[in-house]
Amino acid sequence: MPDTEGHPARAEMDLLTVLSALADPLRYQVVTALLREPAGAERHCSSFGLPISKSTRAHHFRILREAGLIRQVDRGNSRKARLRREDIESRFPGLLDLIAQNAPADDSSAPSRANH
Amino acid sequence: MPDTEGHPARAEMDLLTVLSALADPLRYQVVTALLREPAGAERHCSSFGLPISKSTRAHHFRILREAGLIRQVDRGNSRKARLRREDIESRFPGLLDLIAQNAPADDSSAPSRANH
Repeated sequence: MPDTEGHPARAEMDLLTVLSALADPLRYQVVTALLREPAGAERHCSSFGLPISKSTRAHHFRILREAGLIRQVDRGNSRKARLRREDIESRFPGLLDLIAQNAPADDSSAPSRANH
Repeated sequence: MPDTEGHPARAEMDLLTVLSALADPLRYQVVTALLREPAGAERHCSSFGLPISKSTRAHHFRILREAGLIRQVDRGNSRKARLRREDIESRFPGLLDLIAQNAPADDSSAPSRANH
């Protein structure tokens, strides 16, 4: 069972759901930006420079979360996202390498000031 | 440049486009069914048991073709599809293994009589 926030357990992660989550340019951009961070890094959802409304952004992060690609955590007043690298690598070996090797131009990797 | 039928060259294949093509249950089913065939096998587009109209099927095969996942070839009066295994493996190493390891239940792998 996914937890109360919709994070699936590792064993529940489904490749077709993961591919569907990745198959959107903005969500792909979020994942590739997180891949450029050190392992375990957490970033504000607002730090990716996505040209969309807050509610649309929440929708995209929900899809990433429910696919198991990211974990969202509350940090005081803010909500941060980190890539579930170990879970993804364990469940779908090689997928993150493929994505890293095919990342779009690096236009969102630097955390914005909103992150600090 | 893709050829006149929209098949991209190997170097033109784009991971996000490939993931988008795979991120549909019917298209994923076609690819996993082709993966169960011997390398180089060709199948009629009608042989996958897809519960959709001919025009919708043509749409899905076009997306697979334009992503570079399949090559469609005319064989006399019929049109067949084969998986571009070598191109996919060369361009996105490990992707086909991941898909093969996460294939749905085998409900479409046997070519229908329409294939013969």
